[in-house]
Amino acid sequence: MGYGRAMFATAADFAATLAALSSADAAARAAAAARQAQLTKPPGSLGRLEAIAIQFAGWQGSERPRIGKARVAVFAGNHGVAARGVSAFPAEVTVEMVRNFANGGAAINALAGAAGAELTVVPLDLDRPTADFTAAPAMTEAECLAALNAGAAVVSDDIDLLAVGEMGIANSTAAAALCARSFGGSAADWVGPGTGVDAHGIARKLAVVDDALAFHATAPATPFETLRRLGGRELAAIAGAVVAARAARVPVVLDGFIASAAIAPIAVAHPEITEHLFAGHVSAEPGHARLLGRLGLEPLLALNMRLGEGSGAAVAINILRSALAAHDGMATFAEAGVSGG
Amino acid sequence: MGYGRAMFATAADFAATLAALSSADAAARAAAAARQAQLTKPPGSLGRLEAIAIQFAGWQGSERPRIGKARVAVFAGNHGVAARGVSAFPAEVTVEMVRNFANGGAAINALAGAAGAELTVVPLDLDRPTADFTAAPAMTEAECLAALNAGAAVVSDDIDLLAVGEMGIANSTAAAALCARSFGGSAADWVGPGTGVDAHGIARKLAVVDDALAFHATAPATPFETLRRLGGRELAAIAGAVVAARAARVPVVLDGFIASAAIAPIAVAHPEITEHLFAGHVSAEPGHARLLGRLGLEPLLALNMRLGEGSGAAVAINILRSALAAHDGMATFAEAGVSGG
Repeated sequence: MGYGRAMFATAADFAATLAALSSADAAARAAAAARQAQLTKPPGSLGRLEAIAIQFAGWQGSERPRIGKARVAVFAGNHGVAARGVSAFPAEVTVEMVRNFANGGAAINALAGAAGAELTVVPLDLDRPTADFTAAPAMTEAECLAALNAGAAVVSDDIDLLAVGEMGIANSTAAAALCARSFGGSAADWVGPGTGVDAHGIARKLAVVDDALAFHATAPATPFETLRRLGGRELAAIAGAVVAARAARVPVVLDGFIASAAIAPIAVAHPEITEHLFAGHVSAEPGHARLLGRLGLEPLLALNMRLGEGSGAAVAINILRSALAAHDGMATFAEAGVSGG
Repeated sequence: MGYGRAMFATAADFAATLAALSSADAAARAAAAARQAQLTKPPGSLGRLEAIAIQFAGWQGSERPRIGKARVAVFAGNHGVAARGVSAFPAEVTVEMVRNFANGGAAINALAGAAGAELTVVPLDLDRPTADFTAAPAMTEAECLAALNAGAAVVSDDIDLLAVGEMGIANSTAAAALCARSFGGSAADWVGPGTGVDAHGIARKLAVVDDALAFHATAPATPFETLRRLGGRELAAIAGAVVAARAARVPVVLDGFIASAAIAPIAVAHPEITEHLFAGHVSAEPGHARLLGRLGLEPLLALNMRLGEGSGAAVAINILRSALAAHDGMATFAEAGVSGG
């Protein structure tokens, strides 16, 4: 783990990094596409596996990219708005689940293991929930920068792939607020049952999101300010990890609605942020499909999952591994002596 | 590999086996469902991964099923109707690709490897194509029985999961004929571009299927006769493998349109055949989604693949492994000391 110098000293640093996002290596992409055309299969017959390999090639800068070390990073935070009754679970579950992660008993432990990925869990000041963002910014500038940097710190030189997930009671409400603030629409477009609230809980979530949008309506609409005001520590950390991974040219697999929502404030200003991203899955949370549409990301999986923790992203790592295994391992028509189509 | 006594000595043996298909272990299913309800996650939040684990439990007869050895079986056959210009590739590609499988250069080699599965390739009399089924049954009774038994032979005692795929130039035409004969509809409902024929090729496929349906219209509509008359060796082998796996209580992952079509003649007479089956993916071949709907199977993946070879099924093995890893590896709320929802 590379917990070195903080990547973002100021909000201006973050903005400057977003203004200068790197591009994929066009030559490596072209070489990978040419290789795909020569492999022993009808052209295009591996479908999205081919596109994955080519996308990966562009970021790894190699005709034949590989996934050596993959890391699943799960960020955990607590939210002031949890006190507004927006979750089916009490706020203490965040810290209980972090302990469960540490003890190896959660879904993400099993799913990261099954994907051959290392798991890093980053609890973010769980004893200090963010402020209730219906009446104040969720975080101070210093708190938001610390969260961005905690996210960036999981991107070390030795990884070829990063998957990001979250744990935080009440954070689907923060995610809905981030989406509504970034992409517009009403609170109802983005609020759903989360881990399983009933109709009364959904009504409370809608009210919280409406209140938050009204309170922050005149705030600057920069990615940093939106994350700081309407997000949470784990959401800002995901944004920081995604931006740091881009700088390191490491592809990232997003988990569900909440992890994807963390990117919304960036994507609305810098749509090219999604070029190194994969949507691991589309979750059962209704806003997720809408959000992926706005992000222009097509999910790799649709298994009706809605857990968070990086669980859908971890399963999707297997799809990426399969894509690169075919791309790297297959023979060409010439090598195999097979008649071309 | 268990190439022992032939499972089906006569067509009547095959019919008798289909008439007495085994059922899942209800107690093991119930125990697995009860376990899912206690794991540290909101109920249902792992979506289809939960259903997979429960289905697997029923066949393995264990509350906590495991996948030790998984086998991908690819059956290859040649078809008399290839001479009618129904494929984008010449018939010699079947044997060339079998050589490619043996040399490790095909997509399925890489994808089975990435799924931690063993690959078994079964070429079926490639030097003797089936008869042109527009003018005769594709196979004699002896030929069809031999193919069924070759399929059954890949089911050995030591496997926990079987994935089935195929290779056979012209076999998407045979698959369309099997579907139309089994489920009705016009040839156009079931014919598609396969590995990539153009509009003229599709027109030839439609004509072949219409001719075949007319020629065999008055034949007995038993699974055996439909497979024998309109199928092919690799299609009958898949049917034999699926039925043998059912007898051994081994779940099976189907690959794409062609592998799924091999089950159609059985499913129309014995719909419960699908209880131990997973649809690995829905392919880009238009008839596949329609066929899965008729079979009542929801695909695990939708990656726009259309290669065959068992490729989609092999990728889907990773999803099954993930499901069982979570089911087996997670802690319960009581074990982890997490507050329940």
